[in-house]
Amino acid sequence: MPEVYVHAVEGRTLDQKRDLVRDITAAVVAHFGSPPEAVMVQIVESPKHHKAKGGVLFSDREAPRT
Amino acid sequence: MPEVYVHAVEGRTLDQKRDLVRDITAAVVAHFGSPPEAVMVQIVESPKHHKAKGGVLFSDREAPRT
Amino acid sequence: MPEVYVHAVEGRTLDQKRDLVRDITAAVVAHFGSPPEAVMVQIVESPKHHKAKGGVLFSDREAPRT
Amino acid sequence: MPEVYVHAVEGRTLDQKRDLVRDITAAVVAHFGSPPEAVMVQIVESPKHHKAKGGVLFSDREAPRT
Amino acid sequence: MPEVYVHAVEGRTLDQKRDLVRDITAAVVAHFGSPPEAVMVQIVESPKHHKAKGGVLFSDREAPRT
Amino acid sequence: MPEVYVHAVEGRTLDQKRDLVRDITAAVVAHFGSPPEAVMVQIVESPKHHKAKGGVLFSDREAPRT
Repeated sequence: MPEVYVHAVEGRTLDQKRDLVRDITAAVVAHFGSPPEAVMVQIVESPKHHKAKGGVLFSDREAPRT
Repeated sequence: MPEVYVHAVEGRTLDQKRDLVRDITAAVVAHFGSPPEAVMVQIVESPKHHKAKGGVLFSDREAPRT
Repeated sequence: MPEVYVHAVEGRTLDQKRDLVRDITAAVVAHFGSPPEAVMVQIVESPKHHKAKGGVLFSDREAPRT
Repeated sequence: MPEVYVHAVEGRTLDQKRDLVRDITAAVVAHFGSPPEAVMVQIVESPKHHKAKGGVLFSDREAPRT
Repeated sequence: MPEVYVHAVEGRTLDQKRDLVRDITAAVVAHFGSPPEAVMVQIVESPKHHKAKGGVLFSDREAPRT
Repeated sequence: MPEVYVHAVEGRTLDQKRDLVRDITAAVVAHFGSPPEAVMVQIVESPKHHKAKGGVLFSDREAPRT
C-alpha cells in the first residue's frame, strides 16, 4: 500500500521497467510518506493488438504504409 | 481519456476485437463528447483457467461430459 | 462476462451514462457474441483533482486564466 | 456481480487457483448474499519481472546470493 | 501481495464488508501460502447509477414497476 | 498511454497528490520515452473501511487502543 499499476503496450526493455518501478516507488515514498517495502508497483503489459487509440488497434496503426 | 478496459476470456478473433474497440470508441465519442484520439480501449484477455463463474474455473466448466 | 470498466472524470449527466452503457453493451453483444445479461459495464468516475494528464491534475488545468 | 480480481505473481498451481476461486466465491455468497452464478473471480497473474516491492522487481529480488 | 479487488454495488453494511475481507484473506493465506500481513483486499464500491447489467443501469432496474 | 493508477487510502492533501502525479509522469517520460501529454495518472482513493491488510479493515486497525 499504495499499489501502483502501469498499463503499457509491450516493447520496453527490462532495464526500462527496472528504472521505472524504482523511480515511481521513490515518488510514492517522497510524497505519500509510505515506507518503501509497503509500495507495490505492477506493470500490466498489453500486446499491440489488444490496445487501441482513436478506435484503431496499435497493431493496425503500425502497419507499413506503402 | 476516457480509458476503457474490457475483461474477457481468450478465444475471440482479431477481427472481433478490431470491431469491438472501434464501436466502443464511437460510443464514447457520441455520448461523452470525447475527441476520438483521446479514447483508449484495452482488451484484458484471460486464459480460461484464470477466470471463474459460480466458483468454477472456465477451463473446468468446459471439460467433456461423458 | 465480459466486464467493461470506463474510467472518466466527473461531469457527465445520468442520460449520457445511460446511453453509453447501453451502446457499449450492444457492441459487446454484436462482436463478442455474449448474451446481453452476461455483460457488465461499470463507470469509474474520478474527481478532477484525482486525475492528471501531462503531469498536471485536471483541477489545475481548468483554473481560470487571467 | 460482484467481480473479484486477484493480482498475484506467477508460480501457483492450477489446484491452488481452483481452490482459491472456489473459496473466494463462497465468501462472497456467504457475506454479500450474491447468488453463486453471479460471482466472477479472475486471477490476474504477473511475471516476476513485472511486479516490484520496495522499488525492486521480484525477478531481481530472487537473484542468487553467493 | 497478492492484492484483491472486489467490485460491488453500494448497499452492504460495514459488518458484511468486515466479514468478507477477513474470509477472502484467509482463503488467500490457505491456498496461495501468503503471510496474512502481505494480503491486501480493497472493496471498490459503485453507486447504482454507475453499474449496468444487460445494458441497463442498476438504478433503472430498480425503478418501481407499476 | 501509458495509464498509471495509484490505489491509496484517503488522507493525503491536494499538494501531496499534485506532487505525486507530477513525479510519476516524469518517471514515465524519462524511462518509457512517452510524450508527457500522453501520460495519464489517476489516484483511486479508498475510504479506510474499504481497504484491509492482514484481513483487518484500516478503519478497525486505527481504533483507539485503551
